[in-house]
Amino acid sequence: MPSMKELVQGVDTIWVIVAAVLVFFMQAGFALLEAGSTRMKNAGHIAGKQILSFAIVTVVFWICGFGIAFGTGNNFMGTSGWFMHVEASKIDQVFSSLSFSDVPIGAKFLFEVVFAGVSLAIMWGGLAERAKLAVYFLFGIVFSAFIYPVVGHWVWGGGWLGSVGMQDFAGSTVVHLVGGTAALVGAILLGPRLGKYNKDGSSNTIYGHNQVYSVLGVIILWLGWFGFNPGSTLGLDKSFFAYVAYTTNLAAAAGAIGALVTAWIVLGKPDITYMLNGVLAALVAITASCAFVHPWAALVIGGLAGIFMVFSVQLFDKVFRIDDPIGAFSVHGVAGIWGTLSTGFFAAPDLVNKVGVGKAGLFYGGGFHQLWVQFYGVAIAFGFVFVTSFIAMYLIKITVGLRVPKEEELIGLDIAEHGTSGYPEQLPSDYSFAKRLQA
Amino acid sequence: MPSMKELVQGVDTIWVIVAAVLVFFMQAGFALLEAGSTRMKNAGHIAGKQILSFAIVTVVFWICGFGIAFGTGNNFMGTSGWFMHVEASKIDQVFSSLSFSDVPIGAKFLFEVVFAGVSLAIMWGGLAERAKLAVYFLFGIVFSAFIYPVVGHWVWGGGWLGSVGMQDFAGSTVVHLVGGTAALVGAILLGPRLGKYNKDGSSNTIYGHNQVYSVLGVIILWLGWFGFNPGSTLGLDKSFFAYVAYTTNLAAAAGAIGALVTAWIVLGKPDITYMLNGVLAALVAITASCAFVHPWAALVIGGLAGIFMVFSVQLFDKVFRIDDPIGAFSVHGVAGIWGTLSTGFFAAPDLVNKVGVGKAGLFYGGGFHQLWVQFYGVAIAFGFVFVTSFIAMYLIKITVGLRVPKEEELIGLDIAEHGTSGYPEQLPSDYSFAKRLQA
Amino acid sequence: MPSMKELVQGVDTIWVIVAAVLVFFMQAGFALLEAGSTRMKNAGHIAGKQILSFAIVTVVFWICGFGIAFGTGNNFMGTSGWFMHVEASKIDQVFSSLSFSDVPIGAKFLFEVVFAGVSLAIMWGGLAERAKLAVYFLFGIVFSAFIYPVVGHWVWGGGWLGSVGMQDFAGSTVVHLVGGTAALVGAILLGPRLGKYNKDGSSNTIYGHNQVYSVLGVIILWLGWFGFNPGSTLGLDKSFFAYVAYTTNLAAAAGAIGALVTAWIVLGKPDITYMLNGVLAALVAITASCAFVHPWAALVIGGLAGIFMVFSVQLFDKVFRIDDPIGAFSVHGVAGIWGTLSTGFFAAPDLVNKVGVGKAGLFYGGGFHQLWVQFYGVAIAFGFVFVTSFIAMYLIKITVGLRVPKEEELIGLDIAEHGTSGYPEQLPSDYSFAKRLQA
Repeated sequence: MPSMKELVQGVDTIWVIVAAVLVFFMQAGFALLEAGSTRMKNAGHIAGKQILSFAIVTVVFWICGFGIAFGTGNNFMGTSGWFMHVEASKIDQVFSSLSFSDVPIGAKFLFEVVFAGVSLAIMWGGLAERAKLAVYFLFGIVFSAFIYPVVGHWVWGGGWLGSVGMQDFAGSTVVHLVGGTAALVGAILLGPRLGKYNKDGSSNTIYGHNQVYSVLGVIILWLGWFGFNPGSTLGLDKSFFAYVAYTTNLAAAAGAIGALVTAWIVLGKPDITYMLNGVLAALVAITASCAFVHPWAALVIGGLAGIFMVFSVQLFDKVFRIDDPIGAFSVHGVAGIWGTLSTGFFAAPDLVNKVGVGKAGLFYGGGFHQLWVQFYGVAIAFGFVFVTSFIAMYLIKITVGLRVPKEEELIGLDIAEHGTSGYPEQLPSDYSFAKRLQA
Repeated sequence: MPSMKELVQGVDTIWVIVAAVLVFFMQAGFALLEAGSTRMKNAGHIAGKQILSFAIVTVVFWICGFGIAFGTGNNFMGTSGWFMHVEASKIDQVFSSLSFSDVPIGAKFLFEVVFAGVSLAIMWGGLAERAKLAVYFLFGIVFSAFIYPVVGHWVWGGGWLGSVGMQDFAGSTVVHLVGGTAALVGAILLGPRLGKYNKDGSSNTIYGHNQVYSVLGVIILWLGWFGFNPGSTLGLDKSFFAYVAYTTNLAAAAGAIGALVTAWIVLGKPDITYMLNGVLAALVAITASCAFVHPWAALVIGGLAGIFMVFSVQLFDKVFRIDDPIGAFSVHGVAGIWGTLSTGFFAAPDLVNKVGVGKAGLFYGGGFHQLWVQFYGVAIAFGFVFVTSFIAMYLIKITVGLRVPKEEELIGLDIAEHGTSGYPEQLPSDYSFAKRLQA
Repeated sequence: MPSMKELVQGVDTIWVIVAAVLVFFMQAGFALLEAGSTRMKNAGHIAGKQILSFAIVTVVFWICGFGIAFGTGNNFMGTSGWFMHVEASKIDQVFSSLSFSDVPIGAKFLFEVVFAGVSLAIMWGGLAERAKLAVYFLFGIVFSAFIYPVVGHWVWGGGWLGSVGMQDFAGSTVVHLVGGTAALVGAILLGPRLGKYNKDGSSNTIYGHNQVYSVLGVIILWLGWFGFNPGSTLGLDKSFFAYVAYTTNLAAAAGAIGALVTAWIVLGKPDITYMLNGVLAALVAITASCAFVHPWAALVIGGLAGIFMVFSVQLFDKVFRIDDPIGAFSVHGVAGIWGTLSTGFFAAPDLVNKVGVGKAGLFYGGGFHQLWVQFYGVAIAFGFVFVTSFIAMYLIKITVGLRVPKEEELIGLDIAEHGTSGYPEQLPSDYSFAKRLQA
């Protein structure tokens, strides 16, 4: 029979592991959403690289990312816990920012590494259908080892943004804006896919090849968010995670409807892709605010996130002419910004007291204080990730190169990068393709 | 350190949230099963509308459905708890039917809204490949706001069927028969798909386009049922949920074998689609009875459900000539009826005492009492849903219209309703399709 | 309010049921991986038989498999607990090998039956694309009723291998080597698929038709392993399951990278299929050792499993010319052997004490003792399964026959065995196919 303390720890650990498993499953969500939203000739590469991506994150985060994010250190970054090599008695000292939770360090690592994996998965959206496989290795390492952990440290790991009371419950900024911003940098430096823009500057739609994959991907992501947000309590916390799950779900529903209706009005058709992205934008937005806002506000935040996303996708595609194939920056970046700012408006005093971070929002008499904190937190995180990602990607560009040759992009990355088509009975497999080239 | 009471609540809440997440995942199961069982030209629409459907249920159930189902009221319906707007101290008073469970109201809402989402998902099966998108909005609202909640209130929310001891542990009637009956009404009012029946009254098979999707969908649904049935304890309940999971799984296995062997004998081939529907029919049937019957009875109930389903599908297709594209009424309605009646035969005294609802069944010396209760509960639920769904669908038919124009049905709902094919590299995308029409 | 004892049981049961559900989901993983790795003409059959397979396991394991594996008996097999028919007060006596866990017998059955289901799923890999449907029934029964339970009894059920301290925490040998060995036997007795080998003995690659399915399948399997390994504690066990989840994940990541890089070097391209199998090989290897080794060792064990797998697949394909379509023996057999042996090298004293099985490994000063125990455990399990599977399959071969006629293999099993194509809009459905044959 366990002691009460052991039992409480065990229960907290069940919840954290379950939540981590749900967030892990989001890798499948991203693989399906991204593969479904792009072309057949790249499908194996796009789905498959998700596994490579998570493998890299796991190893690199174990080596140093977790230490930089959650290790005890300074305001900028953690400076301890390399290789997770810590004596049992010193764990709470070395990872002091996570000592509020009683779950074993292995559970903490798992929960945090799946978060890093989500952020990196978002990044890859910006590179889809034209980046070299080597980029996934190289940038994946830099991102997991430094860019993501540093921002994580600022907000959750004992760094300066947490100290000033920035509210980002489960990572609208730390996970989504960070990944989305890196995706934006990647999309800019790679340039648009062949055939995306015409000489007159007008934009062509490059259809994704399988909407069933995309739908399944989004349902899996929605599912994963029940671990993402409610799991961020890292324990039972008097069953507060149920409230977080409840607001999260409301926001997602509002986002689906908000985006579908907006697309229907603005584009003249109830586009399924926009509805799917509306769900995600809403989930991204409620990620920061889920624990701080009342249910009606969750509906408003989610619905607006869905609406904003439609305009943002149009803006980046038609006006800025940045080819972000699955809208990573609009869905994760713009909605991440909106979600982080939203607590500045909607944070309710009772919930702020409960969570114990920051102050109430503008609509609850809290004035502009929290909105300002949220704003500069977002701005600096965006700036940091933009600059560091730009430097990293630029260095890769001038050394290894970012983009596959034109011929390989036309053939598709499945054959060009991996030697085999993802659908060898529906597209040329390597062998028949070679024969066709000869002809 | 939490108090014992807080810890128990936390543990109950973990279980309820996990179960709710599993049931939520059934949305993916339905999306895949339905898309896989229908044609390529409708696949994006069919998968995608599942997300719209769940978004509608979430918002409408939050506004009034939950209050009608579980709010304190009268024998017919709940009359409190609108917008889930209740002071914390009055929650158990306002939602008295759920006060037996100590989990937070957010967890209760989540668990119940995913049930409503399943019932609505079943409904859509009857409309597949020919209904207008607007019908999903309009009927979805009526169903979530009124039809489903009222029957839910009767059995689980303090209404008259619960009072007389009707046994429906997790909703063979409340969820499956209700959804299946609405699907039947939809299939009748819409009429058969173009090409389904010949002038001589004979029936053509319209093949689904992807059996891998269907299989994956059924495995996900089976998985979800481990939340659906065992989660209905809304708490630990002395680990009784493990027993429920155990009988549920036995029944599903028997249903797969029962249906496969029956199809092999009756139709001359071991048809995979029938096996898949056999799993579902068995799961539907065990849903009412999982907590009331012994393992051997679970095998019998599941096996018979699989067998009955094969004949029912044939009957509705060949004799009644109702085009129910994925057999929603046979799988959820007929099996729902059988499952609800089954406790009238198989309910074991020890388990009836444990659960505390109704009496033992005919085969355990309980006489015809419980069978009669089950029978009229089923009959009245069926009648109520048939009539109210008929009125609602008929009103939609004579105002907005239920069915897309013939030309749009031929083109497929993906392009006709949403502007883009779900598989634009394998079927005409909107643009090339338009070009083909010109030619 | 439950008592402390009831609460602890409830919590343990939540964990075991959650883990069982995760392992159940692996059926979807195998269905997708196997269907994706084979051809379109067999996809419905291959995915669908997974459901049949799990249905058979469930019923047969309930009848006798569970009793043989975990029932109290002798060193060779259990001899009690048939039909799971045991008085409540005698359960711990009848299933004494599982009495260390306080969860209800229904939970124990569910957790163990999903393990048996995984082992059988592995077996089917060796038969892909050419075995008769009847084989799945017949061998499925023999495997679930006898072959798997006997080895399970030896290691976990109170049998002789457990007594000598063999370390196989979650079944590198019991589940994976057993299934993989049966697959090898099946592949040998069936012979290669038509077109696999040329007259000069050289081997042709038969491409799988859908890498997205394969990727999704592998992510689902990885997910399921978070139940497979950490659930094997059958309870909280002072949160030790978190540690097991942590080492499991590290190994999987190393396996992906190990196999991808090896394939890149050896085969000249970063083949996605090898990376996917690298994840699985690593997970198979860490299954025995997850609870006994330190994190760095988990990375080494997983990485080496991925590397060994690449060479093993090449060896069986090119040198032994055994057509094992999805590499079942290399991924589950060879990696299962390696994983079981690995504790003989890497088992750390602190963890061995914690788990209480066997001794420390060679690299921690334990000498060759544990390595020798692991070695002969593996050898005898392999021998037993090879011989019994060979006899069973051979008897099926000379009576019912193992392999479909040549014409049916060419047509594909979907139409030949089940009457309908899995993709009737992309391949001939039964009707149009018949027409084509006439022409």
